[in-house]
Amino acid sequence: MTGTTLDDYTDRYARRVRGMTASEIRALFAVASRPEVVSLAGGAPYVAALPLDAVGEMLGKLAADHGPTTLQYGIGQGTLELRERICEVMALSGIDVGCGASPEDVVVTVGGQQALDLVARIFLDPGDVVLAEGPTYVGALGVFQAAQAQVVHVPMDDDGILPEALEQAIAEVARSGRRAKFLYTIPTFQNPAGVTLTEERRERVLDICERAGLLVVEDDPYGQLSFDGDAPAPLRSRRRDGVFYLSTFSKTFAPGMRVGWILAPHAVREKLVIASEAQILCPSAYAQAAVTTYLATMPWREQLKTYREIYRERRDALLAGLADLMPAGTTWTEPKGGLFVWATLPEGLDAKAMMPRAIAARVAYVPGTGFYADGTGAGHMRLNFSFPPPERIREGVRRLAGVMEQELAMRQVFGAVSGLAARRRGQAAADAPDPGLA
Amino acid sequence: MTGTTLDDYTDRYARRVRGMTASEIRALFAVASRPEVVSLAGGAPYVAALPLDAVGEMLGKLAADHGPTTLQYGIGQGTLELRERICEVMALSGIDVGCGASPEDVVVTVGGQQALDLVARIFLDPGDVVLAEGPTYVGALGVFQAAQAQVVHVPMDDDGILPEALEQAIAEVARSGRRAKFLYTIPTFQNPAGVTLTEERRERVLDICERAGLLVVEDDPYGQLSFDGDAPAPLRSRRRDGVFYLSTFSKTFAPGMRVGWILAPHAVREKLVIASEAQILCPSAYAQAAVTTYLATMPWREQLKTYREIYRERRDALLAGLADLMPAGTTWTEPKGGLFVWATLPEGLDAKAMMPRAIAARVAYVPGTGFYADGTGAGHMRLNFSFPPPERIREGVRRLAGVMEQELAMRQVFGAVSGLAARRRGQAAADAPDPGLA
Repeated sequence: MTGTTLDDYTDRYARRVRGMTASEIRALFAVASRPEVVSLAGGAPYVAALPLDAVGEMLGKLAADHGPTTLQYGIGQGTLELRERICEVMALSGIDVGCGASPEDVVVTVGGQQALDLVARIFLDPGDVVLAEGPTYVGALGVFQAAQAQVVHVPMDDDGILPEALEQAIAEVARSGRRAKFLYTIPTFQNPAGVTLTEERRERVLDICERAGLLVVEDDPYGQLSFDGDAPAPLRSRRRDGVFYLSTFSKTFAPGMRVGWILAPHAVREKLVIASEAQILCPSAYAQAAVTTYLATMPWREQLKTYREIYRERRDALLAGLADLMPAGTTWTEPKGGLFVWATLPEGLDAKAMMPRAIAARVAYVPGTGFYADGTGAGHMRLNFSFPPPERIREGVRRLAGVMEQELAMRQVFGAVSGLAARRRGQAAADAPDPGLA
Repeated sequence: MTGTTLDDYTDRYARRVRGMTASEIRALFAVASRPEVVSLAGGAPYVAALPLDAVGEMLGKLAADHGPTTLQYGIGQGTLELRERICEVMALSGIDVGCGASPEDVVVTVGGQQALDLVARIFLDPGDVVLAEGPTYVGALGVFQAAQAQVVHVPMDDDGILPEALEQAIAEVARSGRRAKFLYTIPTFQNPAGVTLTEERRERVLDICERAGLLVVEDDPYGQLSFDGDAPAPLRSRRRDGVFYLSTFSKTFAPGMRVGWILAPHAVREKLVIASEAQILCPSAYAQAAVTTYLATMPWREQLKTYREIYRERRDALLAGLADLMPAGTTWTEPKGGLFVWATLPEGLDAKAMMPRAIAARVAYVPGTGFYADGTGAGHMRLNFSFPPPERIREGVRRLAGVMEQELAMRQVFGAVSGLAARRRGQAAADAPDPGLA
């Protein structure tokens, strides 16, 4: 699967990574997908940890015993059975009837991606502004670009998005005579940064958005993958209004089913259903039945614990590897859940330029440029720890460290040239919004 | 499933059926979905005819034996294995290497609906014109409306779209200073009209589009459901360039899997993949493996014959019922395949206005207004014959005939009033493009 996950990025990169053509990038990733390459590039959950025989038996029965329903068309909004189960899942993290969550306002989608695309389709017109963390989910950038919207990044630190920077961004957009349509945020175990918005900042961010009349689109695919106790409760659990909540079963069950959802404000739920029907007619009845039955009859909370334990061990392997092997000047986030670590390279290294040499050294990652709408972020990289086993992760870090040491050595040799490049980069960064984790 | 299929139409109707609110229509269809109602309204294939135990066994194994791949993310374009199988399927109807069909140019989609939506997303800007048969597929109207495009209907007769009318429509759009972006057509066993474009007209339509530089979007979900020998070869098999070919496994296998495809001109295939990734990231790996394995290991051609035989018997039941029971002045098409008959009511009857009384008489259909962008078509209805068994179909026609007789009797009593309404309708029809089958 490493291969397909990598390949999956190819086209999105084609639009974003400057100076390389789509075919060059595809060739790069085709090489990266070879088994001898350690890929820290993907975002794939470790589905091999599922009880595959039991899942297979369940899936078989869905067709054999209920085929006339599960193999048939369904309804645009998704089945009531699944929407009820989704409300049970959300209630575990505090999004319950107390804050107005109801199966009536849930729209089942083709993974979290369609959830986001539907929200964009309803709200965004060409030229609109969207606020989003910098860096942010590459697939969200794809959606906003398809909608011809402009993304204004808001920087983060280790405690998530910076409230002051958010206020400033809202004000700046307003001064430019426009209005931001919504804040797109992944507050918990952020992709790609791995950081989590603190309790205190959650309230501040919500207050700021409320005052500014700014909708919040909360993307929460990873909230249940917490390694150390529960994650802070979602934004949606704190406010009845003004927050769209998006999530998916891709990380808690399996991405191959492509089942996600939106919990929408009641007033727009109908519009989302109509938009979804125009896109896909209805989500797969079979996949919905699969998720419903999985939640109803299988020990899914135990499975979630299994996923968490596997990922915690792999995160530990990645963090230990980075601490032991990375050249001086490299820094990284320390995620308390989710799938990703965000690394910042020593001054002067360029993760995008280094990529072909990394592939040659049989290690792959995603350069930071993929996570910014403006092409900045070359001094960073995203490292995934959910898919490769611990020993492969360590080997990957070893190879990566070797490449970086070589780059740094070359940089010393060609110091004058690199220094010039670094100064140029510094100037570009000063002109643009803060590209990194502030 | 009758219920969900009906419900499935609710929101699309909400936007199109005038004079009724969304909630009224939802209430109407909720009543229509009761088991005592004979529904001729849906468009559901009879999936109960599948070998469900064998399909279940196959689906179970996909997870048990191949879960790490089938339950994982896939690639945006769809797996090569499935795209190769799709080319084998297309080759059966003449779309083969000889006319440039290649797995490289196939994009796997979430049913035929996403295929159409992707084409629209790439080509349509607000205010653009799309030519389409009148009547046409209700879900296509949803796509074009979401894209803020204007649909210009081209009338048909029993031999499909009228070439002269197509030429005229192209010229009229050009005279108005605009240009039609493409012709959307379902040439074989059309939905909702049930008619098929003849061999001779296929060439003429293609020539006309070629001369006008007009792209053709050929939607072919029903081509393999032919009751009397093979259907005429698809448009795409006759031209290498200028034709997008869209199809689906919803009618030949099962709609619950939501697997369709586009065979696109090479130059735009990449754009379609990027657009699809922004919408759904990737199609379901599991559903793709299911279709691939179904085609590779199960007797799918035999199953197709089974579907054909069932539907032919049901079509015969519907046509016989109509001939025996319909009031004088009713006419209908005689489809040689597919799922639908299009009926034209005696002068003065209004299928939309009659709908609540039909539901009260425990029979449901889709009023013709759903299949026109301009709200015309009230003198028609679409009748489905793929889902209900023959005896239910006959009973449904009996109930429907009863309702129509009552309407006609009322019309005689209130002749003056009805006459006025009919004249008003006649005037509206004269102002608008021909709403019926010419």
